[in-house]
Amino acid sequence: MFKHILLISNNYAKVSSDTMNTVINLLEKREIEVVLDEYCSKLADRIGSKQITTESFENNGYDLAIAIGGDGTMLRAAHVLADHDIPLLGINSGRLGFLADIPANEVEDYLVKILDGNFVEDERFQLHAQISRDGEIVLESDAFNDVIIQKWNIAKLIEFETYVDGTYVHKQRGDGMIVSSPTGSTAYALAASGPIVHPSLDALLLVPICPHTLSNRPIVIDGNSKIEIILKESKIEQCCLTCDGEVISEFRQGDKLTITKKDKKIRLIHPLKHDHFSVLRAKLDWG
Amino acid sequence: MFKHILLISNNYAKVSSDTMNTVINLLEKREIEVVLDEYCSKLADRIGSKQITTESFENNGYDLAIAIGGDGTMLRAAHVLADHDIPLLGINSGRLGFLADIPANEVEDYLVKILDGNFVEDERFQLHAQISRDGEIVLESDAFNDVIIQKWNIAKLIEFETYVDGTYVHKQRGDGMIVSSPTGSTAYALAASGPIVHPSLDALLLVPICPHTLSNRPIVIDGNSKIEIILKESKIEQCCLTCDGEVISEFRQGDKLTITKKDKKIRLIHPLKHDHFSVLRAKLDWG
Amino acid sequence: MFKHILLISNNYAKVSSDTMNTVINLLEKREIEVVLDEYCSKLADRIGSKQITTESFENNGYDLAIAIGGDGTMLRAAHVLADHDIPLLGINSGRLGFLADIPANEVEDYLVKILDGNFVEDERFQLHAQISRDGEIVLESDAFNDVIIQKWNIAKLIEFETYVDGTYVHKQRGDGMIVSSPTGSTAYALAASGPIVHPSLDALLLVPICPHTLSNRPIVIDGNSKIEIILKESKIEQCCLTCDGEVISEFRQGDKLTITKKDKKIRLIHPLKHDHFSVLRAKLDWG
Amino acid sequence: MFKHILLISNNYAKVSSDTMNTVINLLEKREIEVVLDEYCSKLADRIGSKQITTESFENNGYDLAIAIGGDGTMLRAAHVLADHDIPLLGINSGRLGFLADIPANEVEDYLVKILDGNFVEDERFQLHAQISRDGEIVLESDAFNDVIIQKWNIAKLIEFETYVDGTYVHKQRGDGMIVSSPTGSTAYALAASGPIVHPSLDALLLVPICPHTLSNRPIVIDGNSKIEIILKESKIEQCCLTCDGEVISEFRQGDKLTITKKDKKIRLIHPLKHDHFSVLRAKLDWG
Repeated sequence: MFKHILLISNNYAKVSSDTMNTVINLLEKREIEVVLDEYCSKLADRIGSKQITTESFENNGYDLAIAIGGDGTMLRAAHVLADHDIPLLGINSGRLGFLADIPANEVEDYLVKILDGNFVEDERFQLHAQISRDGEIVLESDAFNDVIIQKWNIAKLIEFETYVDGTYVHKQRGDGMIVSSPTGSTAYALAASGPIVHPSLDALLLVPICPHTLSNRPIVIDGNSKIEIILKESKIEQCCLTCDGEVISEFRQGDKLTITKKDKKIRLIHPLKHDHFSVLRAKLDWG
Repeated sequence: MFKHILLISNNYAKVSSDTMNTVINLLEKREIEVVLDEYCSKLADRIGSKQITTESFENNGYDLAIAIGGDGTMLRAAHVLADHDIPLLGINSGRLGFLADIPANEVEDYLVKILDGNFVEDERFQLHAQISRDGEIVLESDAFNDVIIQKWNIAKLIEFETYVDGTYVHKQRGDGMIVSSPTGSTAYALAASGPIVHPSLDALLLVPICPHTLSNRPIVIDGNSKIEIILKESKIEQCCLTCDGEVISEFRQGDKLTITKKDKKIRLIHPLKHDHFSVLRAKLDWG
Repeated sequence: MFKHILLISNNYAKVSSDTMNTVINLLEKREIEVVLDEYCSKLADRIGSKQITTESFENNGYDLAIAIGGDGTMLRAAHVLADHDIPLLGINSGRLGFLADIPANEVEDYLVKILDGNFVEDERFQLHAQISRDGEIVLESDAFNDVIIQKWNIAKLIEFETYVDGTYVHKQRGDGMIVSSPTGSTAYALAASGPIVHPSLDALLLVPICPHTLSNRPIVIDGNSKIEIILKESKIEQCCLTCDGEVISEFRQGDKLTITKKDKKIRLIHPLKHDHFSVLRAKLDWG
Repeated sequence: MFKHILLISNNYAKVSSDTMNTVINLLEKREIEVVLDEYCSKLADRIGSKQITTESFENNGYDLAIAIGGDGTMLRAAHVLADHDIPLLGINSGRLGFLADIPANEVEDYLVKILDGNFVEDERFQLHAQISRDGEIVLESDAFNDVIIQKWNIAKLIEFETYVDGTYVHKQRGDGMIVSSPTGSTAYALAASGPIVHPSLDALLLVPICPHTLSNRPIVIDGNSKIEIILKESKIEQCCLTCDGEVISEFRQGDKLTITKKDKKIRLIHPLKHDHFSVLRAKLDWG
């Protein structure tokens, strides 16, 4: 089955060395080649494991990536794997995550089953964002959860126009606009009053942030749509593009943001009987 | 092109005889056979037109239906045409509707173009609802906008469980649950805080009505899903099933409601350059 | 201190005989005269206690009432005591309530302290509702949480006008309108998207239920205001007035509902260090 | 009546010289001494009028201030007058404002009546904000609409604790918290899903901005409360305090923000028959 596995963690994750060592030991016992990213390297005891840095990531034939941490680590892993066709498994070292669904304290049981081939794959699409300025593409970025334009360094509204597949949707004033994948619908979009979108749905979600016009409600459109957002009124450095919570670029008056589905997917690996609704129940305290 | 057209109106619609006569004259001048439903018959001057009653509707080769009134008339027309493959055009005699988009005061211009073949077709799916009681199907109904279970005759919560494709979603307490098509997302579902779903999206919408648990938010799922709702706690006659605003049946404790996409669609006819977002802007006062 | 205590329970409350007997024993040991309502009588072992039925309640010098059950029992107790100036203490036999804040499993500790005089009093105002029809008052009722007009037996909107102190507020279409006291702001009003109003605030809350116009938001006004609601469009028996979840009356087209603060308050008794925000945190799962 | 009037405008206001001159002429004809602020001076023709700059404002016996512009100008005027007991009248040169309610195109009619003594006064309270750092007050500011802490320069949550009158309310994660006066309830707080609070109500409004926990809803408390907010987790320069849309200060981890009612009020002057609900209807498109 899996012969060449990449372990990914991150700075903020509260991952114990114990979990890390347990995973590495289990994998190496099964004669799987284990490669550690820079964060895993800090945590692992085992000197012999191969180490890489993700900044200059190349896919050297990995057939699985395991992220150890939480949903933040999963986001980081998704960014590393964005252009590579490598399945991704998530171990949560703290609370259950929307994405990282293997509990660290039962990692061995779960991992053995998955390595034995007992798993399901859950393909999630990514977003691709592009900023054009004066007719030239000045920036491109991917996102797993959401692409957001938002007011920046000000306590005033920004104003922008939205188009879907070339058709004018509206001019809106507010704190910004979240364009979310189904995966991102339970992240920031939910806090901004967006609906929950099942990850299997081929849809994009437009969620306004604190819109001035109260009838500006979240809109769900086909996943193959092209969304364009043009910033109308805003002073220099008062609007920002962020992807998955990371600042990507200033967004200037007249700039056009184009968002489409990315051509490559993230392939999440779950234990058998994975059930998205049970994750929602647990995370959202549904009775 | 169209040779055999059915005209549909309804009781509540504020339709003038003038509009009705204008439409009939225009059609008959073009040697189109015009058939009037019972409501149109009351309004039309022209004695010679063929008349039917929709209660015992049969498709005698109609190649177009025209609803004259408003969105309520369109709903009625959709119910008449639910099982027949007849395109439907809507003339609004009052305010612009989400569904009826030909303004009565310009009906001739629009109609000529459409009869000349200049139109777009917009397929909308319908919902099919089924109630099982003690293992037997006791009732079936269709809906264009929404299938709703709601508290009835009481000012207390009902409690129900929801399943999607056999998977448990949640047990919820509240005033009820709206299962909406994309078409219905701008009807009652919107008032209950649901998102706007573009009609081209193959999705179903679950919108709780005043849920007791504040994290019970609207959920958007694949349009091919099977939704099941089972009523847990409710006294006799304290919950009701309604479809498109019409009372269909009592919904009893233990009853199971199954909702799927109906196999037949409603084929809306729009003028060329029809644009759903411009309808949204007008109806929702988006700046 | 307290010499003459009334015990109140209700039908639905999951009260154990144990709790009931514990309370009675503790009170009688202190030579307090204990009087049981009809529901307590069923549960209590002690034959000797005096019994009344609340339907024909008279205040025979009670200096405290104790409700045993939950928030529903507290509502019932408030209705019994509405016109009498008797302090009310709530014991919750299940989950913590917004109103019933003495846990049954620690009832002795808490009760001893309260009987020793260690308590705080928390005055809550009540609502008074009046329906006028053709110029005559046809009905009056009180409420502790909320007075609600709502659509009844239909799946269609009702339309009504609201006035505050004689000033026109708006004509609104929707499922109804909740007029809530601060106490009721965490009951049905919260499910209908109303704000949380601190019980010490002298304010009334107008919360529309699923309003058709999306900018019809909850309104908070002075507690001394007179609210009038006139039903505009509605068929016979399609709108209902409910108080605290109980059906009070049909509300007919043309009827006028007048809501004011009632002149008598409910005097809640809490343990020392009672803290409304800690109740909110517990009930609303605020981290 | 009024003998000494200050005219206030601002940079952004789209005020015509015509309106300005009309007002000045009308006032001077009545032998009222007119004093222009720096923005009015730019617009007015009349050389003879006395001019001041508001930066170093002193109350030289003004008995009325007139703001010409819109709600933004009214906010600016309120800031100028915050500590002075001068009534304020608002002329809107564009759309009706929540605060500026005299239409520019009918300014003469309205103004004559008001100068004749036909007006109502509407006292609005202001907010006072104070930041303490390491036990020292490092900053104080006033606000008419709202005092807000919000994430700044980041696309990540901030975490803060709120206290009311020394009692712990909650720890919350989100984009920030709006503390609003009733006047501010129709400003940013409304976009963040807060309720509408009637300006005559003595209340403060706590409205979370995109809170992570979905049950963190707006809270309305007594106007005499002391609100304290302590920033828990945030990096340097990632949270900001703003008052009425103006950046006041960085808000650092450990900083404590204290908000109370200011001891001085803003005295708005309205035409007779002013009606706050009619303003709401017009501004919020209530049918």
